[in-house]
Amino acid sequence: MKNVVILGASGYTGAELVRLLAGHSGIKIKALSADRKAGLEYGAVFPHLRHLPLPSLCKIEEIDFTGVDLVFCALPHATSQRVIKALPAHVKIVDLSADFRLRDPEAYAQWYGGPHAALELQKTAVYGLTEFYRDEIRHARLVAGTGCNAATGLLPILPLLEAKLIDPDEIIIDLVTGVSGAGRGAKEAMLHSEVSEGTQAYAIASHRHLGEFDQEFSKMAGRPVKVSFTPHLLPQNRGILATIYLRGEAKALHAALVARYRDEPFVYVLPFGEAPSTRHVRGSNYCQIGVAADRKPGRAIVFSALDNLTKGSSGQALQNANLMLGMEESEGLNMAPLFP
Amino acid sequence: MKNVVILGASGYTGAELVRLLAGHSGIKIKALSADRKAGLEYGAVFPHLRHLPLPSLCKIEEIDFTGVDLVFCALPHATSQRVIKALPAHVKIVDLSADFRLRDPEAYAQWYGGPHAALELQKTAVYGLTEFYRDEIRHARLVAGTGCNAATGLLPILPLLEAKLIDPDEIIIDLVTGVSGAGRGAKEAMLHSEVSEGTQAYAIASHRHLGEFDQEFSKMAGRPVKVSFTPHLLPQNRGILATIYLRGEAKALHAALVARYRDEPFVYVLPFGEAPSTRHVRGSNYCQIGVAADRKPGRAIVFSALDNLTKGSSGQALQNANLMLGMEESEGLNMAPLFP
Amino acid sequence: MKNVVILGASGYTGAELVRLLAGHSGIKIKALSADRKAGLEYGAVFPHLRHLPLPSLCKIEEIDFTGVDLVFCALPHATSQRVIKALPAHVKIVDLSADFRLRDPEAYAQWYGGPHAALELQKTAVYGLTEFYRDEIRHARLVAGTGCNAATGLLPILPLLEAKLIDPDEIIIDLVTGVSGAGRGAKEAMLHSEVSEGTQAYAIASHRHLGEFDQEFSKMAGRPVKVSFTPHLLPQNRGILATIYLRGEAKALHAALVARYRDEPFVYVLPFGEAPSTRHVRGSNYCQIGVAADRKPGRAIVFSALDNLTKGSSGQALQNANLMLGMEESEGLNMAPLFP
Amino acid sequence: MKNVVILGASGYTGAELVRLLAGHSGIKIKALSADRKAGLEYGAVFPHLRHLPLPSLCKIEEIDFTGVDLVFCALPHATSQRVIKALPAHVKIVDLSADFRLRDPEAYAQWYGGPHAALELQKTAVYGLTEFYRDEIRHARLVAGTGCNAATGLLPILPLLEAKLIDPDEIIIDLVTGVSGAGRGAKEAMLHSEVSEGTQAYAIASHRHLGEFDQEFSKMAGRPVKVSFTPHLLPQNRGILATIYLRGEAKALHAALVARYRDEPFVYVLPFGEAPSTRHVRGSNYCQIGVAADRKPGRAIVFSALDNLTKGSSGQALQNANLMLGMEESEGLNMAPLFP
Repeated sequence: MKNVVILGASGYTGAELVRLLAGHSGIKIKALSADRKAGLEYGAVFPHLRHLPLPSLCKIEEIDFTGVDLVFCALPHATSQRVIKALPAHVKIVDLSADFRLRDPEAYAQWYGGPHAALELQKTAVYGLTEFYRDEIRHARLVAGTGCNAATGLLPILPLLEAKLIDPDEIIIDLVTGVSGAGRGAKEAMLHSEVSEGTQAYAIASHRHLGEFDQEFSKMAGRPVKVSFTPHLLPQNRGILATIYLRGEAKALHAALVARYRDEPFVYVLPFGEAPSTRHVRGSNYCQIGVAADRKPGRAIVFSALDNLTKGSSGQALQNANLMLGMEESEGLNMAPLFP
Repeated sequence: MKNVVILGASGYTGAELVRLLAGHSGIKIKALSADRKAGLEYGAVFPHLRHLPLPSLCKIEEIDFTGVDLVFCALPHATSQRVIKALPAHVKIVDLSADFRLRDPEAYAQWYGGPHAALELQKTAVYGLTEFYRDEIRHARLVAGTGCNAATGLLPILPLLEAKLIDPDEIIIDLVTGVSGAGRGAKEAMLHSEVSEGTQAYAIASHRHLGEFDQEFSKMAGRPVKVSFTPHLLPQNRGILATIYLRGEAKALHAALVARYRDEPFVYVLPFGEAPSTRHVRGSNYCQIGVAADRKPGRAIVFSALDNLTKGSSGQALQNANLMLGMEESEGLNMAPLFP
Repeated sequence: MKNVVILGASGYTGAELVRLLAGHSGIKIKALSADRKAGLEYGAVFPHLRHLPLPSLCKIEEIDFTGVDLVFCALPHATSQRVIKALPAHVKIVDLSADFRLRDPEAYAQWYGGPHAALELQKTAVYGLTEFYRDEIRHARLVAGTGCNAATGLLPILPLLEAKLIDPDEIIIDLVTGVSGAGRGAKEAMLHSEVSEGTQAYAIASHRHLGEFDQEFSKMAGRPVKVSFTPHLLPQNRGILATIYLRGEAKALHAALVARYRDEPFVYVLPFGEAPSTRHVRGSNYCQIGVAADRKPGRAIVFSALDNLTKGSSGQALQNANLMLGMEESEGLNMAPLFP
Repeated sequence: MKNVVILGASGYTGAELVRLLAGHSGIKIKALSADRKAGLEYGAVFPHLRHLPLPSLCKIEEIDFTGVDLVFCALPHATSQRVIKALPAHVKIVDLSADFRLRDPEAYAQWYGGPHAALELQKTAVYGLTEFYRDEIRHARLVAGTGCNAATGLLPILPLLEAKLIDPDEIIIDLVTGVSGAGRGAKEAMLHSEVSEGTQAYAIASHRHLGEFDQEFSKMAGRPVKVSFTPHLLPQNRGILATIYLRGEAKALHAALVARYRDEPFVYVLPFGEAPSTRHVRGSNYCQIGVAADRKPGRAIVFSALDNLTKGSSGQALQNANLMLGMEESEGLNMAPLFP
């Protein structure tokens, strides 16, 4: 039995980790932190988990890290790097924030508006896209969870760049995402009255996950790759769907993806021509990918769907933690999606 | 042409007033105030109204009330009474807050937690339930808009108390309400992720609209009447549905309501046994009422549905303003509901 | 390892059973039937389950029941009784339809509009409310799953009748339910355009689950009990919330419910005065119950929330099947609710 | 006062026409047809319109067209052409079906799977995109309403092709649409349980509105133009949002659109860099267009939002009917959007 701590447990990704760990046979939650809500029972903050025997919320400084094997850090961006820097050397860390995703300090500064506070750690962090960094994750001390939009775009495109089946200069990622990705903070724009019954693009041509796309696509292609990327906010809670416009032979793309993901436990490539739905991965760690031919020769449309709180963040985090702790990679992650 | 001002125009009831007035032939908006958003164009705050020629938002103190006939006051409770107290004597006022709904200073202090700041005005305010105070409203300087839940419960029950067809000690109002009634303030509990796909009671046995029920029911019955009332929050934006359990003969209740509302432009009594839906009054000033017999003899179930932002607040406010300004009562209010 | 068959697997309760059994360590699905969709892969009908290794859909007559321990029957009402009558004697049965819920043939004929086709079986069926029929279920061949609305009302009220803490003649159950309870059949009234953004009562004073309430409440009280019951359709997929108006001392009611359910794995009584939400039980087998005092002395309001597809039907069915098969009652049912 | 008839009045576009005409000063509804629902009161089929004085539903053959000036035909595709062919010569017709949108009989046969039944009429029909066919519509006997997706894509792109500011071979239209566009027919895929909380592409590279895009874009460009087009179904009722990827200078594109639509009453171009939302046009006849620069030089992203039932079909139909009847083009269409 391994002991973990969740820092920043009062947000949605924290609660999702607790939900997943409740079904995990080898991990025990030793502490849950949430600064402003310290002292509260967890069930008072997330009533859907009130049946679970859990430690009350505490402040980070109250946590005794003796015997703790791994820390899930679900703190806000910028806060995360300062807290992680101060953690004792014996704990492994899965960070769900954006702080350690970009390896290049300059890229970090560009996308996040200032210098990094833990440059040494940044150098050693492993990017948490399990399907592409599995071996490094197994031996990492610090793994940086990917952006949820980034994961949705990277999984279908990386194998196609690797196989040189698409034109790297002609990649358009049009993406729709549910509202839970914006977190539990009280913002006018995320009110039910503002979100429901409507749809709208945001962060046009400027979303921070572009930094992750640039980093990973360029690395895979062996030369600079810049994609076009437009996210939209959907009137639903969970789920991201990417619709990706590519230059390449659709059948060949499909075959490459089928081959690449045949043995992956959580990435499922649909039969040619079928499109995935976010509702068919909700609450699960699965990513479903579809490929169709455009009516214009030499062009393909690729779809990718996952649950932003599971495969897009907390499920991915647990998948990585399992590897880092020497456990079965899929432990605690096999639950079927919830539909309807 | 009459001139009006809307104070507190950056909230949902303010925007609903602007929407309704855009279709009104005899009223011109002279100023729109919103303290924290002063200086902004109205279309920047409510992009659905950006096609309208409207004054920019300003601070109250910047408004010249010369030539203003009527003020709609959509400010928060407590703020409203202080602002209204200071308005020039020549303007008429329709207040959409709770500040002038209760005539009894003690009842006000009990439900709103402190003494009233404008006791003299409070005495003269007319309760804005048009169908029961039409003549007083016509001659009032200050009309206090009803609570949206209160309106939904009062309209079906008052005629039955008046006709002495029900037992005043056995009234249970179970009510579900859309989330727009909570306003545009950023609150965690009103986020899309918190509201959608779930339902829950709130303010159990303690909702402030009980004060209005007590006042109006007791007045009509000629003796103290206390109802049971449980509101619930629904995963939808607009609409309130009251399901009311009563002791009385259902057919007689239905007949009394049909007779009472036959000539009212905005209250529609359905055929016996039919139940109204909030979706069939959305965006309109209509209230639909239904009556059915319980399977237990001598008991009836009465339903009442309206749109909380229209008949429940801003539509009612305009209906009253029309009367106060000597205009056709239904001017600007005849739009059909929006479905689906 | 036990073998089960699911008849009528193309509906929502069938899919929910498959979802739950995917996480069950001791049960294997041997066959899945769906007459009109026979021949299709299960993942073509429910794409969220396409990652599971499952038998394709078949016709009932194609199933070899040799070695089958238990049949889940998720067929439509009326069809169910004819099919179950013809099942081989060695299989145990959990029926999710309404066919065997009422023990009295006359009551059955009254509520379901005709005589029962399997009267002998009807006599032996055990009512599937686990918390009240656990021992009989353990030894039953045929268990009749409760109505989902019925379960929501019975769980909080039965212990209060048992303890004689409430007036049996003054029970009002006001209930709101998500749309998945209406099944997957294509009906105009269940379209997204018809259901979303609106709420409405249905089956007023005539819902068939009244038959179950009458049967179980009268049995518990030892004399005829008739409740008032009004269900409403909500714009959400899963979840039932009952708001129950009772005569009795709220504190005593709360204490009785706490005591009654202290050792039950799936019924959770909230602290006094708190109200449950359907969103906090979604996708789980939990029922959350709350008790509050009305402002009128001697009156109480009791709330009960569960997921209609889980504790209200398929979760309950699995809980009962576990008992019938000599397994741990909660096996496969411990997943935490999905929120948001 | 002009007299109109609505054929196929039991669907959503029919009801939307009735809603709009209820606020029109110069048009009277003389008959409403709906074959299977003939004999019913209109309020029984659409309870949100029960307050209106309307003729009951009838069969087409029962209608006396004497004195009828114009027929709105909201019948299903294929049925429409047969019915319209048989209408008396004196009535003008606005057809909301797809039957007369394509001018080329071969294109029609290709997209709709068979020969046209009214070839002569097809030749004379005017395409109903008011902003581009205003003069022809004014003098037309038969106007073919555009597809709702088609309108959303045509309005922002046509002026750019006209001004030769974009590469006609590099147009990608990614589009999301609410569910009301699928009509009121009972289909499993449109159930609330299937649609809510999920998103998915459909009709990939094969949607029939491609026929309209091909026709209008090629005509405007003076040479064949084929776009890529992927529609998605959204969990909301009304609204279409197109996100369009183009090659061209974003600022120049914006300037051209501003200039082109400056005097149009219903097309509103947002300030550069802003994106429209479907929620800000709901229930209205407005189309909002936004233009932003991609981060890749020489590429632009253009957004277009409208309400599929209003500007996308029934509002457009009334706009055209106003022209055909010699009335003010915007009569009955000035209502502000409904938000929230």
